[in-house]
Amino acid sequence: MAAVNGSGESQPAKHQEVGHKSLLQSDALYQYILETSVYPREPESMKELREVTAKHPWNLMTTSADEGQFLNLLLKLINAKNTMEIGVYTGYSLLSTALALPEDGKILALDINRENYEIGLPIIQKAGVAHKIDFREGPALPLLDQMIEDEKFHGSFDFIFVDADKDNYINYHKRLIDLVKIGGVIGYDNTLWNGSLVAPPDAPLRKYVRYYRDFVLELNKALAADERVEICQLPVGDGITICRRLLRNLLKVVEYFTLDFNMAVANQYGVYGGGAKPPSKVNYSYQNQKPTANPSSSSDAANKANSSKALVTLENGKIQLVFSRIESVQPIQLCAGDEFSS
Amino acid sequence: MAAVNGSGESQPAKHQEVGHKSLLQSDALYQYILETSVYPREPESMKELREVTAKHPWNLMTTSADEGQFLNLLLKLINAKNTMEIGVYTGYSLLSTALALPEDGKILALDINRENYEIGLPIIQKAGVAHKIDFREGPALPLLDQMIEDEKFHGSFDFIFVDADKDNYINYHKRLIDLVKIGGVIGYDNTLWNGSLVAPPDAPLRKYVRYYRDFVLELNKALAADERVEICQLPVGDGITICRRLLRNLLKVVEYFTLDFNMAVANQYGVYGGGAKPPSKVNYSYQNQKPTANPSSSSDAANKANSSKALVTLENGKIQLVFSRIESVQPIQLCAGDEFSS
Repeated sequence: MAAVNGSGESQPAKHQEVGHKSLLQSDALYQYILETSVYPREPESMKELREVTAKHPWNLMTTSADEGQFLNLLLKLINAKNTMEIGVYTGYSLLSTALALPEDGKILALDINRENYEIGLPIIQKAGVAHKIDFREGPALPLLDQMIEDEKFHGSFDFIFVDADKDNYINYHKRLIDLVKIGGVIGYDNTLWNGSLVAPPDAPLRKYVRYYRDFVLELNKALAADERVEICQLPVGDGITICRRLLRNLLKVVEYFTLDFNMAVANQYGVYGGGAKPPSKVNYSYQNQKPTANPSSSSDAANKANSSKALVTLENGKIQLVFSRIESVQPIQLCAGDEFSS
Repeated sequence: MAAVNGSGESQPAKHQEVGHKSLLQSDALYQYILETSVYPREPESMKELREVTAKHPWNLMTTSADEGQFLNLLLKLINAKNTMEIGVYTGYSLLSTALALPEDGKILALDINRENYEIGLPIIQKAGVAHKIDFREGPALPLLDQMIEDEKFHGSFDFIFVDADKDNYINYHKRLIDLVKIGGVIGYDNTLWNGSLVAPPDAPLRKYVRYYRDFVLELNKALAADERVEICQLPVGDGITICRRLLRNLLKVVEYFTLDFNMAVANQYGVYGGGAKPPSKVNYSYQNQKPTANPSSSSDAANKANSSKALVTLENGKIQLVFSRIESVQPIQLCAGDEFSS
């Protein structure tokens, strides 16, 4: 593939060494980002893996260096420890993840092809992070289904990165939404699909680009409409959509009164407002029954029945919910029509 | 400004309503992101402010909707509570920030022009988040200098967003690096400057674009070379560079022995590996003096002298440092040549 410069001559664009077509207004701009902000800070091991991967015939599949840098920073920002990656290839994003996690961090890495992973493995080992990786060869869906069967995996992942068969992203999402923790992140790669999403019907597209395009369009629509997550679609690499799991729909609030009350607070309160201190006052507990305490009171003598299921607390005007399955206590936003079910 | 479509006809690009030129390969792709992932999820108040701002003659200065969404999500991901914004204009990014912060979150908002802020203020008030904002009219540098004088502001901000006079970004950075907390984030806006950074010397550029271009180029070089931060430059809006402050250079380690030891661990350990538990074992404390304890031992009886300055601890192969000024304990990466000074 070649880019055309201002004088009309054709010259190879360096970042296309690894098969990436930039989403940006010019290859020069993408190259500027890579050369100014990315390559000078790329760890030696990642550089080595990127260069080895560039020689592989399927190098189009690798995560780009700018996206690798973004993932690494994101994982540190959210203090990720337990993660999953679906679609490993030679392991560039996997190495980026492994370098970001703490020494006892874990990555469950799934790919149908171990051979490609073994191209990167010696470099990952040399970087001293291979012990964080649990690689499993095989299709991801059956394994995800097994995990869904086991309650202990629910809400257990801080971060999940999906860079695999685009025609299965929606199927992955159906399962991953239960496996990622509340407040945790799922990242879907290639959601801008070379920019082909907005190509006119008669545009010349490679066969595989055209085939997967409709799946990516459907995924983007589905993620945008999914109220269980907040999203952000970034034109990094080939486009990555970050989904942050919300608490919504986990517990069922059956009192209209409760919903009204929550609405008032929700209007002036963001989702997951931060703060992980346990509440000092527990006011109400719900399990499909009306609370017995006065909603405007704030005493410790409130209804504590079934508190192992869900506690709704009010402190300094903030609503907090505590679940037996969730370790930390986080303020949440409640909206009209929210359904909560334990 | 107008975009040219495939048939050669000129048509207005919708996102340019607010004066933004997309960094992406086509206006259609940018519009796709806005219409698929951003607008349907934009809070009503932000939509209203965006539309009011679009009618203002300086609307070129506003933060774009995709960047507003990104900032909002980023702030939740890092649990930001105490933030600063330099350059407010009508307050679109400010509102996005205020909506993301907890009820007791704070934003110190600085701008030389209160009139513009007052365009957005009624909408911010209606959204119920104005109480989080401390707006100050006037130039930012003198105020930052005042804050630098007062130790209590050092490391006190979880997040700082800069969207102001590009020729002062480097001057802001010199001060902000001390005001943001370790592990906290500074975001610099417009770091891809319409893509003009890679324009040939004779390219037709608007006067202000050409004037500020060299400052943006210098900033990008300086941030890329600044070892006090990790960075990531994202082509969101007009380009935002995310800087995550590292611990580097805060304390002075004077023992070569210590550096050697740290190097071995650093090789297999990421920066800020996560985990905020206080260490159960304190092994060494430093204050420009050799530790008396055996480096390979791990007993509680280790040297605790001067522990109010800095404690270097080893637990499960992780190095942790505790400072009197830093509330949480975080594992860090140490590199050869690192200087630590209390």
